[in-house]
Amino acid sequence: MKKIAVILSGCGVFDGSEIHEATLSLYAIAKEGASYEVFAPDRKQHHVINHITGKEMNETRNVLVESARIARGKITDLKRFDPDDFDGLLLPGGFGAAKNLSSWAFDGPGASVLPEVENAIKGMVAQKKPVGALCIAPVILAKLFGQVTLTIGDDPNTAKAVESLGATHVRTTHGEVAVDKVLKTVTTPCYMLNATIDQIAEGAENVVRKMLELMD
Amino acid sequence: MKKIAVILSGCGVFDGSEIHEATLSLYAIAKEGASYEVFAPDRKQHHVINHITGKEMNETRNVLVESARIARGKITDLKRFDPDDFDGLLLPGGFGAAKNLSSWAFDGPGASVLPEVENAIKGMVAQKKPVGALCIAPVILAKLFGQVTLTIGDDPNTAKAVESLGATHVRTTHGEVAVDKVLKTVTTPCYMLNATIDQIAEGAENVVRKMLELMD
Repeated sequence: MKKIAVILSGCGVFDGSEIHEATLSLYAIAKEGASYEVFAPDRKQHHVINHITGKEMNETRNVLVESARIARGKITDLKRFDPDDFDGLLLPGGFGAAKNLSSWAFDGPGASVLPEVENAIKGMVAQKKPVGALCIAPVILAKLFGQVTLTIGDDPNTAKAVESLGATHVRTTHGEVAVDKVLKTVTTPCYMLNATIDQIAEGAENVVRKMLELMD
Repeated sequence: MKKIAVILSGCGVFDGSEIHEATLSLYAIAKEGASYEVFAPDRKQHHVINHITGKEMNETRNVLVESARIARGKITDLKRFDPDDFDGLLLPGGFGAAKNLSSWAFDGPGASVLPEVENAIKGMVAQKKPVGALCIAPVILAKLFGQVTLTIGDDPNTAKAVESLGATHVRTTHGEVAVDKVLKTVTTPCYMLNATIDQIAEGAENVVRKMLELMD
């Protein structure tokens, strides 16, 4: 049975992992006959957002602890991730990918990426194992590799920003994936488009299927 | 297009809505061609649980605000729910149903149910509109109606507790539903069993399908 590691970045679209993308990624993995294990960085969230008002709350939360809500408690500090143990790696989206895993939301192409995120992704790519990324998470691939073919949907500003790093942006719509055959990365826009939840399921499933193909 | 209201109880299995059940319920509704609107009570959570350690955290969170994470911000105070506006009502599980929507986790058959939860469910039943409940949420139906046919899976203690209220418990396994044809309630065990995420999707889908049938 193929085993896919999933990196979460909190619990909620505006300050962590987008919950539908995360859940439907886990579902897609199980549905396609693979198994998953969930990881997240053991670090303070950049901030906490009230998801009704969009305003910052005067609280601090931990990315690993909040991600555990999506993982039902079964989660491991990303620092302990070993690429030898997995056949693939998947990053759902949500602002957490751009606020907690990297600083893209604030610094754009000048963003930094958490070292444990960089190590996990580069470790898989070095072993020629596929890495999937949904929604805004593909910007991390652009930041780490420069030359990579990816999609973040159809937003011209984000497309321009990843291209400034050397990436080739493929304009896509719901459920479509962009594959980089050299790096074995698979990306899809999800909620970077104005999507419905069944379109998110389709995108996650297409990414997981393509990742499994690339493992053969 | 049929419209189903979904009542959430927070965000995370141990102190709120079970995230997979909630997300896969929304997905099932969309997949079956219906639409959804999300509600939650505007009240303080009973407590906040660290989902890694299982221990209580020294924090307070609001059920409506945390549920908004699953609803991507589009959520309404349950007090504003009007049964005239919907064709069906669905309650995903998680301890939130037994800690925030009712006090079942602490008081068992002697539990109280939030008035806005009671009003929403009884309002739908009075209009002969179907009500679905996943996981532990069916205990609320037992508490409100006494005589109701339902399932919470195969846990003998919970089965005995709902039967003490007059309910008829149907022992079920993954994905199976119990239907009360008089009240038009539809229940399935989900994570009351030791389930995988694809079994949760199956349970949610079967409940939604049966609810749609009961609307005809």
